Amino acid sequence: LDEAVKLLLQLKETYKKVTGQDYKSGSPPSEVTSTSGNGPTATTEDDDVVDPWTVATSNAKGIDYDKLIVRFGSSKIDQELIDRIERVTGQRPHHFLRRGIFFSHRDMHQILDAYENKKSFYLYTGRGPSSESMHVGHLIPFIFTKWLQEVFDVPLVIQLTDDEKYLWKDLKIEECYRFAIENCKDIIACGFDVNKTFIFSDLEYMGESPGFYKNVVKIQKHVTFNQVKGIFGFTDSDCIGKISFPAIQAAPSFSSSFPQIFNGRKDIQSLIPCAIDQDPYFRMTRDVAPRIGHSKPALFHSTFFPALQGAQTKMSASDPNSSIFLTDTAKQIKNKINKHAFSGGKDTIEEHRKFGGNTDVDVSFMYLTFFLEDDEKLEQIRKDYSSGALLTGELKKYLIDILQPLIAAHQERRKQVTDDVIKQFMTPRKLAFDF
Amino acid sequence: LDEAVKLLLQLKETYKKVTGQDYKSGSPPSEVTSTSGNGPTATTEDDDVVDPWTVATSNAKGIDYDKLIVRFGSSKIDQELIDRIERVTGQRPHHFLRRGIFFSHRDMHQILDAYENKKSFYLYTGRGPSSESMHVGHLIPFIFTKWLQEVFDVPLVIQLTDDEKYLWKDLKIEECYRFAIENCKDIIACGFDVNKTFIFSDLEYMGESPGFYKNVVKIQKHVTFNQVKGIFGFTDSDCIGKISFPAIQAAPSFSSSFPQIFNGRKDIQSLIPCAIDQDPYFRMTRDVAPRIGHSKPALFHSTFFPALQGAQTKMSASDPNSSIFLTDTAKQIKNKINKHAFSGGKDTIEEHRKFGGNTDVDVSFMYLTFFLEDDEKLEQIRKDYSSGALLTGELKKYLIDILQPLIAAHQERRKQVTDDVIKQFMTPRKLAFDF
Repeated sequence: LDEAVKLLLQLKETYKKVTGQDYKSGSPPSEVTSTSGNGPTATTEDDDVVDPWTVATSNAKGIDYDKLIVRFGSSKIDQELIDRIERVTGQRPHHFLRRGIFFSHRDMHQILDAYENKKSFYLYTGRGPSSESMHVGHLIPFIFTKWLQEVFDVPLVIQLTDDEKYLWKDLKIEECYRFAIENCKDIIACGFDVNKTFIFSDLEYMGESPGFYKNVVKIQKHVTFNQVKGIFGFTDSDCIGKISFPAIQAAPSFSSSFPQIFNGRKDIQSLIPCAIDQDPYFRMTRDVAPRIGHSKPALFHSTFFPALQGAQTKMSASDPNSSIFLTDTAKQIKNKINKHAFSGGKDTIEEHRKFGGNTDVDVSFMYLTFFLEDDEKLEQIRKDYSSGALLTGELKKYLIDILQPLIAAHQERRKQVTDDVIKQFMTPRKLAFDF
Repeated sequence: LDEAVKLLLQLKETYKKVTGQDYKSGSPPSEVTSTSGNGPTATTEDDDVVDPWTVATSNAKGIDYDKLIVRFGSSKIDQELIDRIERVTGQRPHHFLRRGIFFSHRDMHQILDAYENKKSFYLYTGRGPSSESMHVGHLIPFIFTKWLQEVFDVPLVIQLTDDEKYLWKDLKIEECYRFAIENCKDIIACGFDVNKTFIFSDLEYMGESPGFYKNVVKIQKHVTFNQVKGIFGFTDSDCIGKISFPAIQAAPSFSSSFPQIFNGRKDIQSLIPCAIDQDPYFRMTRDVAPRIGHSKPALFHSTFFPALQGAQTKMSASDPNSSIFLTDTAKQIKNKINKHAFSGGKDTIEEHRKFGGNTDVDVSFMYLTFFLEDDEKLEQIRKDYSSGALLTGELKKYLIDILQPLIAAHQERRKQVTDDVIKQFMTPRKLAFDF
């Protein structure tokens, strides 16, 4: 019964987010009000919901990202920008860029202009440690950030928002901090360079930094409750911790939050790779930045990594069958993909051979776009599956054969992460860059 | 013109606080709504206004403190409590207690019960550094706190809310911090023992303490916007910094905010001496305390120190003629008292001799109740002034003769406060107590 009530309340909340109206039995919603990017939640005409706490769509292909760009007022990552990145860095653009997985940006041309003029920037990304286990989808921003750090050779700061999780979840402070440390191990296992990377827990770093809290207070002075109500949909019943939290996620966008790294300089611009649902935090940050004498952070936005069950929702760390976890065994990976990965194939082999499968909704194929680096092979699979030459089981096998060694290697690297290594990454210190 | 507009806006604001209605020319206010101590501002029937930002009354004798006790739900400091303090400490109660300057408390009997059972507590008080100069009224909580520390021999923490001043005033962070340091010198000059006292700036200590921010977040999780709206009168147009600030003033009430001093223990109760206008912060703190596993702070509340112009308002650090400043010369002290101190005397010497003066509204006499320790002499002055035997000029001379050496001695002690002494007081460290 509890489960059913919970589901009902959740549905009512989603209803309210999508329609902007309270659910009333027997009374269909009136027309959806456009929020023009300023409303608490971005909803497109076909009722996609995207904010830091909810990502939902009724479309099996997933969120309509082109509409989201218009609504959020960001810029599409077009071929021209991708070509320019290749020119400036001398490196082939990452397949996340080539395939539109990172699809939207803010001010990337400004970052590249400055970079060409030998003016440096830094990378800032983060993670909300809501449990000790991360899934493959959580790797996306870190894989891309690692690539960016390597091709641009810049400092990187990674925020673990354990305070946020404490405020939003029914967890103790100590649990949230423990999750932060566990997640930190997975992040380190992605292969970041300890000489160029600083990872921090909010709960810990706030009490260690002469710059972080000052920036938090500066931001908090320049954002009203009306504004966070508009951007995040907070209400009068929300705790004051949630209401003021956006300033905590905003502060690492400013280099003076890290005086050890930037030698007290406040003029180093940040570039933030993140999933598009985090954009509301940084729209707010960009609004405040010039008013407190800082440059606006630039952004790279990614699409969402689909749940095994389909692209309608983001994966949930709390549902073990919604995703492949970084702790899964080879056998679990195989079983989950075979059993749960939503298929674009036809009901019978005969029909499949005749009509072909649909890669637009096939989750295994979507996962391959994230993890199979070889463009030609991916295109071959797409063609073969669409024509019916490739069966669903065969498609799934490609994915299993990629994910099993990828995750095994991750687990191997994670084992090497000792307490001492964690301490090195998490100690406020100068990095291998002079400012 | 600017001044006049500022005054008008201020009056309109006060009007709104008192009546709960917007000012409208030619339309008198309807009946005042009682807020029963839960409203944003405590107003008594005769329209006293008391909150952390406004203290105002139309009564020349000042605020009606008995009504405030009922409204705030605190307890009167009665003779029984004063006698008990004398019994427990073996010391004659401070004249601030004997004369009702500290007139209200919360849970003092609990503190004394525990103290008698050899269970320690600590003192917590503070100051909002809104300018570099403090006036004599600002000394009251510190004089009393010093006495408490000496008779009970307990640790003391003093919070300088430079972050609050940054949020509320049109000042830069650097200015607020500088004011904190300047005020710190005046506080040290009161004679606190460096081995038993920790003074901290919020802006600085937040980045130095492994315990402070964690308590702030815990408090912020357990207080909603609705609650701070009710307690402090915040609106949707207020910045999120103001909205979440009450947690910052609450956190030092909990011993785990000072792990260096209390060895990580969270069970040491605090006793907070403060002016009654700060009580809303601690009503909120006491409400949260049991829900996060801490004991409620006990409180001592003082009356307000009257402005030279009369007891209707608290003094303002921004109006040089409203008070005696700790930087005033002997000549300035004399001139200010003679020129600005509101007199309860009659218009002519003849009338004064015949009808006598009114010590209930005479500011010089009120100041003497704060600074003249000799009870008998004070009573003699009261009688003589009331009978007309003592003229206003003579009464003022008594006050001048007390304040001139008192402030000269303060200035002398303040000169001795070197940067090194400030650093000693402000360094997070163990004090001369074992926990």
